[in-house]
Amino acid sequence: MSLIVVGTVAFDKISTPFGSSDKIVGGAATYIGLAASLFAKNVKLISVVGDDFPEDFLQLFRDRNIDLSGLQIKKGEKSFFWEGKYHYDMNSRDTLDTQLNVLADFEPVLSEGHQDCEFLMLGNLAPQVQLSVIEQLKNRPKMIALDTMNFWMDSAMEDLKKVISKVDILTINDEETRQLSGEYNLVKGARKIMEMGPRYVVVKKGEHGALLMDRNNMFYAPALPLEEVKDPTGAGDTFAGGFVGYLAHTKDTSFENMKRAVIIGSAMASFTVEKFGTENLRAITEEDIDRRIQLFVDLVDFDIILVE
Amino acid sequence: MSLIVVGTVAFDKISTPFGSSDKIVGGAATYIGLAASLFAKNVKLISVVGDDFPEDFLQLFRDRNIDLSGLQIKKGEKSFFWEGKYHYDMNSRDTLDTQLNVLADFEPVLSEGHQDCEFLMLGNLAPQVQLSVIEQLKNRPKMIALDTMNFWMDSAMEDLKKVISKVDILTINDEETRQLSGEYNLVKGARKIMEMGPRYVVVKKGEHGALLMDRNNMFYAPALPLEEVKDPTGAGDTFAGGFVGYLAHTKDTSFENMKRAVIIGSAMASFTVEKFGTENLRAITEEDIDRRIQLFVDLVDFDIILVE
Repeated sequence: MSLIVVGTVAFDKISTPFGSSDKIVGGAATYIGLAASLFAKNVKLISVVGDDFPEDFLQLFRDRNIDLSGLQIKKGEKSFFWEGKYHYDMNSRDTLDTQLNVLADFEPVLSEGHQDCEFLMLGNLAPQVQLSVIEQLKNRPKMIALDTMNFWMDSAMEDLKKVISKVDILTINDEETRQLSGEYNLVKGARKIMEMGPRYVVVKKGEHGALLMDRNNMFYAPALPLEEVKDPTGAGDTFAGGFVGYLAHTKDTSFENMKRAVIIGSAMASFTVEKFGTENLRAITEEDIDRRIQLFVDLVDFDIILVE
Repeated sequence: MSLIVVGTVAFDKISTPFGSSDKIVGGAATYIGLAASLFAKNVKLISVVGDDFPEDFLQLFRDRNIDLSGLQIKKGEKSFFWEGKYHYDMNSRDTLDTQLNVLADFEPVLSEGHQDCEFLMLGNLAPQVQLSVIEQLKNRPKMIALDTMNFWMDSAMEDLKKVISKVDILTINDEETRQLSGEYNLVKGARKIMEMGPRYVVVKKGEHGALLMDRNNMFYAPALPLEEVKDPTGAGDTFAGGFVGYLAHTKDTSFENMKRAVIIGSAMASFTVEKFGTENLRAITEEDIDRRIQLFVDLVDFDIILVE
């Protein structure tokens, strides 16, 4: 049984008030896959790159036991490229350049080998591409998680609503929660989104943490207050990767276990933002992860004595 | 041994996108005192009002065992008045009117009866007024907490730094942390502020919760995600009141107990924002408080199973 990760594998060029990167490997499925592979042992990637994509990064995926049979490599074409510049608050950013390249006509193709999909993570992509993956699976996965962004709400809302209606979990940031639901209040907004299909909503609030909700429960995971944030790129994807990777590893989709998965996702995201690109995701060890999770435990731990 | 609360007792007129109030009782010391009195049994108020201040509200303070011997009532003068309008996000607001009235030449006067002060909460006021209270105490209290705002950073920074150097705990919001420290990063900013005097900093992040730090420890308390926020006025003061009231009640200033105090403060603030003005602070029972605290316990509760 596998965890299938769908999304972009691409190049990014990033500048922040504190530094800038060369053209480096990024993309939603890259962050999701690398983070998930630290927990789930059978990750399969569905994506597309050009033949300009570095072989040593493909080898890194393979070394992490990530199956690349669903990764199309288009000869003579170029990989998706995004260039962006973060503002001083590190929350908002401007896109300086977007070159769709191979992504322009990407059609995901699932093979017989992908039909063992138990968990499906649909990273940010055109909703009709996300939908095509769901439709190619003969048996519905145990759990489908979807990430998306405001761009698709502006440009493809009907398709987006269609795919949202078919998933179990939506991960979405606070502004997007407001846009999608039409509610300013996040609790009301998340409840409205649950009426669109998902049983669970994870509201990603960046440096303010993440909120997991189902119809009856609410769980709040803080972000780790960090002294150095170098590059927020991929933080949300890394969160999603850690989250779904932990679910796939434990095969437990109870709310109690989803809470743990949110903590794992938050811990993984805290690593990503400390360095540019995937640097930390490629370097951290199991010991690093355990130590980081302990910081989250300590950060919110209290024992209350009710007032007599 | 007493908890002395210093700050404004005043009138507010508030409008939000969801409603508006008449001229109602507000003021930092009102919120702090009412919240603290639900925990500490010997609260003493230092403030000033005009003779337009309603007797039934003074009686409410007395009913809560709040000592009013330090509350000056100026005959023929008017109480401080503030009118404000909140924006749609409920985080930012415009001041429409400020009438200092009795506050213009307020000089706090402490009597022999105030010399038993064990905990001192200096609510938002001119720094030289806050300083005057500290100087009138013959013995230094066990713990002094200070609340302030950006207005004093803009207009009286030297006085403010002087009073900050004399306190144990500073409660301050995220933007003010940045302004006071000159650091955008909140962890770095809080560390810089600790070098100015306080051993503890509580960064109040509104709907995103609160962060308690000392030199070696960090604790994050979320705000309760609420479906209805009617009026944020007094939320920070209510937080401070619950926080210091709990410390004064337990007489325990360990970091472990300060964490509990932050949760208590957060719970109290969540009540205040659900209604206009002090409505909830006047109405809630011990059972309401216990139930609310349990929501905070549940909100952040998880048991992690580290990955093998």
